[in-house]
Amino acid sequence: MEKIYIDHNSTTPVDPRVIEAMLPYMSETWGNASSLHLFGRAARLGLEDSRDKIASYLNCRPDEVYFTSGGTESDNLAIKGVAFALREKGRHVITSSIEHQAVLESCEFLQREGFEVTYLPVDEYGSVRPDDLKSAIRSDTVLVSVMYVNNEVGTIQQIDELASICEKRGVVFHTDAVQAVGRIPVDLSNSRVSLLSASAHKIYGPKGVGLMFIRTGTPILPWQTGGHHESGLRSGTVNVPGAVGYAKAMEIAISDMDEIQSRVGVLAESFRMRIQESVPDTKFNGHQTQRVKSTVNFCFKGAEGEALILNLDMKGIAASSGSACTSGSTEPSHVLLAMGVPPEIAQSSVRFSFGRSNTTDHVDYAVLAVREVVERLRSMSPFYAKT
Amino acid sequence: MEKIYIDHNSTTPVDPRVIEAMLPYMSETWGNASSLHLFGRAARLGLEDSRDKIASYLNCRPDEVYFTSGGTESDNLAIKGVAFALREKGRHVITSSIEHQAVLESCEFLQREGFEVTYLPVDEYGSVRPDDLKSAIRSDTVLVSVMYVNNEVGTIQQIDELASICEKRGVVFHTDAVQAVGRIPVDLSNSRVSLLSASAHKIYGPKGVGLMFIRTGTPILPWQTGGHHESGLRSGTVNVPGAVGYAKAMEIAISDMDEIQSRVGVLAESFRMRIQESVPDTKFNGHQTQRVKSTVNFCFKGAEGEALILNLDMKGIAASSGSACTSGSTEPSHVLLAMGVPPEIAQSSVRFSFGRSNTTDHVDYAVLAVREVVERLRSMSPFYAKT
Repeated sequence: MEKIYIDHNSTTPVDPRVIEAMLPYMSETWGNASSLHLFGRAARLGLEDSRDKIASYLNCRPDEVYFTSGGTESDNLAIKGVAFALREKGRHVITSSIEHQAVLESCEFLQREGFEVTYLPVDEYGSVRPDDLKSAIRSDTVLVSVMYVNNEVGTIQQIDELASICEKRGVVFHTDAVQAVGRIPVDLSNSRVSLLSASAHKIYGPKGVGLMFIRTGTPILPWQTGGHHESGLRSGTVNVPGAVGYAKAMEIAISDMDEIQSRVGVLAESFRMRIQESVPDTKFNGHQTQRVKSTVNFCFKGAEGEALILNLDMKGIAASSGSACTSGSTEPSHVLLAMGVPPEIAQSSVRFSFGRSNTTDHVDYAVLAVREVVERLRSMSPFYAKT
Repeated sequence: MEKIYIDHNSTTPVDPRVIEAMLPYMSETWGNASSLHLFGRAARLGLEDSRDKIASYLNCRPDEVYFTSGGTESDNLAIKGVAFALREKGRHVITSSIEHQAVLESCEFLQREGFEVTYLPVDEYGSVRPDDLKSAIRSDTVLVSVMYVNNEVGTIQQIDELASICEKRGVVFHTDAVQAVGRIPVDLSNSRVSLLSASAHKIYGPKGVGLMFIRTGTPILPWQTGGHHESGLRSGTVNVPGAVGYAKAMEIAISDMDEIQSRVGVLAESFRMRIQESVPDTKFNGHQTQRVKSTVNFCFKGAEGEALILNLDMKGIAASSGSACTSGSTEPSHVLLAMGVPPEIAQSSVRFSFGRSNTTDHVDYAVLAVREVVERLRSMSPFYAKT
């Protein structure tokens, strides 16, 4: 049985061209980029070349790009680093109620450190309303963090508008763009975003590598301290093969973006429509237009999310009941709850996230499989009555 | 001209067997180890297999091994995580004056957070005296951190004795073992160490991967928060290929340890003796016996460390003037200063760290090159007068 992977928001395979770009930096140019000698300088060249490329893709300055170990580290650095840098100025932070755990748990850490955190609501499509942000900013607000693209439902926020509101009020603005960079155009020269987090493994790059864009002049303290790598903001021997692989993955993602995203978007939309037509009592979650189309999130009333995932898995289909990072949790998705989905419905959610390996055959098979699995689980459920 | 690398304490090439072990986890078994489906479970198997192997090499329980992005992250997690977990109990931390920057800067962070830090002195060989630790422990001491093997001079501390002192006093003991694991036997079942940091790229493994041993029951809070990976102590999608590569690197290091370390040790000792015989006014830094023999640190009075490194580099020899993590700094080594070396002498230090690719020819050539470079720099120095 072919295994069909429809969980590209969790992770992606490493592109063979990315591996090919990384290998020389493991076996030939393997020096420590901080060493002064030839071996070190050669590695440093590869590192800075990768930084330059990424800066050109994001349209920012190379010295505004910092390599980290991934999106979670970047979110931690942004939120804790800015808050600690500014805590004498104020101890109020604003985020949204649909953030990734890396942001939410960083905010909870700040609460234990004496900060107050406001969680902005979202509308039924998962969008933060700019007016809500305007009214939430106080004189002691030092940081706002709103994700670019939601990992569970794919909703795209009005990041540039939110960033501009913050800039006018003198507040640092961070966005977790892990699901955005490489999937939708992100141009930092047209934006007032202060900090942006992204991750390589979501776009066919290696695991264990992320980046942090920090606009020049943004107040921030390092969170991982040590030997002053990455201009002192992120200590630890730099993972040069990882940085090189990330630059290659971003190059591929950006050069193929229009073609891939439109093809994958058509597959995903076709899947969405066919599910809605063929599976009754199905609730689609997310914005119809302001959404990364490859993400399709459904609630299948009367079936339980984890049971759906495991039954789909037995049919060879890999999907997710939410973020992979919270897999195993039996709580309903905080994202869907924030969008006003009742808990008993939210518990029946499945996220399908399509990627470039998917085909129309996958869609055909997945539609049939989902229908079968949903019908069977519902038939076994004492709570489900066809409406 | 052949390039001779004698800087293995900075980093090492990735062993081809390590790359071979990692590749399937990039291109075939590339799932997110947190995903519930087949792709995730397959990755999880590789991850847990790596954890099991590492636990068996270190002689600890698999659930005491946590993967991180490297030694620096592990040091940060240990020091900040334990201190924050125990800050209601006490705010006194003890470390040594010869630690890596990752430990020293983490302690400085704690000082800014209201902790008091005691820096233990070392003797002229770079050893912490257990009695000094005994007298430094106070009723409000919550954490002691002393490195296993010093990165600049190779001195091996009496870690098990220091750990036992701490255990008797109810104090958590951490050791930065980045230069120890894979070079000397480390057996955690015979030790009362509470936490231990190590890193893959120092032992022919990949960059961007480290580990943290946390003995069951050790009080610690996560420092990088998010989706509760690694039992909630280290969030962020786990770098499975990195973990697999690390396990393979450790397997090789441990199975070959006796043979490699004795051969490399002989090379290094031969280099040390020949330099001492052929270059006058040379001061050897470090312990004669309680030392990882592959590390040979010299001061060449009258020559400046960075000039030595750059001139050796022009002759094809890669060495370091201290830790790669502080390269570019013109300050004399804090390690040598703590060992009582006067600043003007400390500034002339060079660290040679041998590895398994080195040969007797390398030693022959390096001895000649060092002699030439030292003589030339001294002849140009207005301060050097032959004694």
